[in-house]
Amino acid sequence: MFESAEIGHAIDKDAFDAEEPLLREALLEAQYELRQQGRFAVIILLNGIEGAGKGETVKLLNEWMDPRLIEVSTFDRQTDEELARPPAWRYWRKLPPKGRIGIFFGNWYSQMLQGRVRGEIKNAQLDQAIAGALALEQMLCDEGALIFKFWMHLSREQMKARLKTLQDDPLHSWRLSPLDWQQSKTYDKFVRHGERVLRRTSRDYAPWYVVEGADEYYRSLTVGRILLDGLQAALKAKTPRLPQPHAAPLIASLDERGLLDSLDLGQSLDKDDYREQLATEQARFSGLMRDKRMRKHALIAVFEGNDAAGKGGAIRRVTGALDPRQYHIVPVAAPTEEELAQPYLWRFWRHVPARGRFTLFDRSWYGRVLVERVEGFCEPADWLRAYGEINDFEEQLSEAGVVLVKFWLAIDQDTQLARFKAREKIPFKRFKITEDDWRNRDKWPLYREAVEDMVDRTSTEIAPWTLVEANDKRFARVKVLRTINKALEAAFAAD
Amino acid sequence: MFESAEIGHAIDKDAFDAEEPLLREALLEAQYELRQQGRFAVIILLNGIEGAGKGETVKLLNEWMDPRLIEVSTFDRQTDEELARPPAWRYWRKLPPKGRIGIFFGNWYSQMLQGRVRGEIKNAQLDQAIAGALALEQMLCDEGALIFKFWMHLSREQMKARLKTLQDDPLHSWRLSPLDWQQSKTYDKFVRHGERVLRRTSRDYAPWYVVEGADEYYRSLTVGRILLDGLQAALKAKTPRLPQPHAAPLIASLDERGLLDSLDLGQSLDKDDYREQLATEQARFSGLMRDKRMRKHALIAVFEGNDAAGKGGAIRRVTGALDPRQYHIVPVAAPTEEELAQPYLWRFWRHVPARGRFTLFDRSWYGRVLVERVEGFCEPADWLRAYGEINDFEEQLSEAGVVLVKFWLAIDQDTQLARFKAREKIPFKRFKITEDDWRNRDKWPLYREAVEDMVDRTSTEIAPWTLVEANDKRFARVKVLRTINKALEAAFAAD
Repeated sequence: MFESAEIGHAIDKDAFDAEEPLLREALLEAQYELRQQGRFAVIILLNGIEGAGKGETVKLLNEWMDPRLIEVSTFDRQTDEELARPPAWRYWRKLPPKGRIGIFFGNWYSQMLQGRVRGEIKNAQLDQAIAGALALEQMLCDEGALIFKFWMHLSREQMKARLKTLQDDPLHSWRLSPLDWQQSKTYDKFVRHGERVLRRTSRDYAPWYVVEGADEYYRSLTVGRILLDGLQAALKAKTPRLPQPHAAPLIASLDERGLLDSLDLGQSLDKDDYREQLATEQARFSGLMRDKRMRKHALIAVFEGNDAAGKGGAIRRVTGALDPRQYHIVPVAAPTEEELAQPYLWRFWRHVPARGRFTLFDRSWYGRVLVERVEGFCEPADWLRAYGEINDFEEQLSEAGVVLVKFWLAIDQDTQLARFKAREKIPFKRFKITEDDWRNRDKWPLYREAVEDMVDRTSTEIAPWTLVEANDKRFARVKVLRTINKALEAAFAAD
Repeated sequence: MFESAEIGHAIDKDAFDAEEPLLREALLEAQYELRQQGRFAVIILLNGIEGAGKGETVKLLNEWMDPRLIEVSTFDRQTDEELARPPAWRYWRKLPPKGRIGIFFGNWYSQMLQGRVRGEIKNAQLDQAIAGALALEQMLCDEGALIFKFWMHLSREQMKARLKTLQDDPLHSWRLSPLDWQQSKTYDKFVRHGERVLRRTSRDYAPWYVVEGADEYYRSLTVGRILLDGLQAALKAKTPRLPQPHAAPLIASLDERGLLDSLDLGQSLDKDDYREQLATEQARFSGLMRDKRMRKHALIAVFEGNDAAGKGGAIRRVTGALDPRQYHIVPVAAPTEEELAQPYLWRFWRHVPARGRFTLFDRSWYGRVLVERVEGFCEPADWLRAYGEINDFEEQLSEAGVVLVKFWLAIDQDTQLARFKAREKIPFKRFKITEDDWRNRDKWPLYREAVEDMVDRTSTEIAPWTLVEANDKRFARVKVLRTINKALEAAFAAD
């Protein structure tokens, strides 16, 4: 969920200086239009890792926009008046009216996360708080609010470096309370519980936007840009009522660097290493599948990837280690008539393996947020809500002991072109290349955006995505098998 | 929540025989239209008290409609195949396809309720199960399902009588498992937890319909009628997509007997009794408000009622017991400009009293489901979702220690007319009677339906409605004060 926000996004000062005045002007204009229309209120929630620039972002938004039309509320210690009333009262009294913007700094999410990290509440109580937050936000949206939720993020190392800088600078050290320092120790807890909260509360009408906070310029432009896009879309909306689903990607990469760029596609294995490592991993896999601890689990492997990335070959190397009775391959193509008459996930639920069994999906439920999104086979509202539905689905699998590994096999455009051409020349491979493949290739940037969005929204602790550098097929196949083996071993160890 | 389903609804055999053939024919026709359109699936969930006719209802629906297009699924003990997979798998595999009807008998609600009643799970886990059910139903509706949730109800006495009959009849006794008998002992638990489940899962897109199950004819016609109305509305809907909010009242009273009819409006107090009882209750109230246990609580009293039912007089008798610094009266009229710029409940949240304090609402947040519903001041979608929002709101009040009493002051039409005429004659009361009052009077049946619907959907254990027989003002005033006193004493006793 935080993958794209840990790759070192940065924008240089010149680019920032060139962009900032235009963004400012557009934001101001949107703000006046918001007041003019008076149709809806805007609520901005700021959460995330300490030191990731939450405070600076608030300051900046106040500088950029007309501060008379923004109210910043910090919810720190409760006042006597607040303590004497239901907990939500403090938020209600600070709600911005229609036409205005309210920034909630230290909001309901901060409270539930701090409580969970400190161990004052358990997961069941956290889930109750999450249900309360969802009900509140749903109601606010039904009543005409536009909600932006920002999670300002830092990797563990980035946070440590940042806290150190702040500490060294006496002018800034006032920003760090003892609690903040505690977070530095409990970073892992904060991120783990944060992921649970984000996974369950990212909804089409109020999604989370995760922003990498290390670089000031990148962070500022990204937040400003997301706000501007969302505001303009809502201001232009023809329907009299919000909520509109937010269509912006979860993570806008203004620096033109995405998760897929961060892959080193040059990685490869020579033939001998490949043979040896493949044999080792296959033997290990075969042993794990026969392990008696496997009776408590099932295994699902999802294969997605660029056309010609080598999904079929990788799948064969996985199944090659097993007896055919041990696994079941589900090739996913266009839905049948029977499947079309059911809710989208039905065709995948029917293939959920029993305990002890293994199912490979050659393409999967992610079709909805990949091909269906890019080709327009479903409405934006459908694929936007699919992320949440998929996370719910995978959480149910995980809770039932299913080990779920998800692979995106990534190649670059040159490699794809070479493979397409090769396929055309080899008679028995010609059936593998169609007009569709060439058409999809033209949509490379759209697919790329959909893939990064998918990973950011559905890579979770319980079901992480593994990006597989697949320019070299040998490297890819070994990485796939090794990842499956590690996942099984981790699950067995946790029993 | 179950008030209207415990008043002994009944329909005689002749009326049933006259109605049944028409209903059957219409249901069959709707069923074929459903198949013809193939746009959505229908899911019927049947829950409720043992002996309230769940099984008979399923049998009847199968008789009435074309059983080839209905699939009845009972989810009793899990099969080996089901046990080896995530719990929801068994429901997914039984989902009806578009164009068909699936009846789920013993569904996710049965499981969570049985677990809670038996003490296998606590409230926090029940809430997790509730959140899961809500997510599932929301998704099903988004994917084009029309969901009907029936809670077949019996009062404790009705259930006992019914179980006895069944036991006496050897032909029927097979229906009672040991678990059923256990329910007879744990009726109170089942109803209490059932109320929590209904309160939280009754949503505009999938509301609960509570049906009194004692009389076979009433029960059958009611279920058939609700199904028919809902089906016809969905089949006629112009928008390509469901969910549509269900607009049918939660409890259809086909026998023309509503909750308000069950009141004995003839109750009265003579002057001497009134003086004595009023003085007693006022003294008791004054003492309770000064009790130190009041520091942990706040008190809210909501006054709603027919025009000229005597709300003002009742309020004065309550406040008469107190020092003016001890209470705050909020008269609710048309919202101010400032209030209109906020979510609906904002204007009430701002007046939530601090601990130790008392606020009286002369009309309240129930305006949305009364005057706004009847007069069309808001969309059906708004007032339909308001019930859930109000229950959430009141639950937050209750959890914060607020004691909430809600009064509906009920008079009959003759009494209202007499009071209207009297007001016109008395100069200083003339301002109290307006054109609006006469207009509202014409809408008596609509208000009556809205009131009964409101009580059924929002009378909960934590915030029950008290219906006050107010033809006699003296009787009403004493009942109001006594109810407040009892509520405070119960809250203090539970501390």
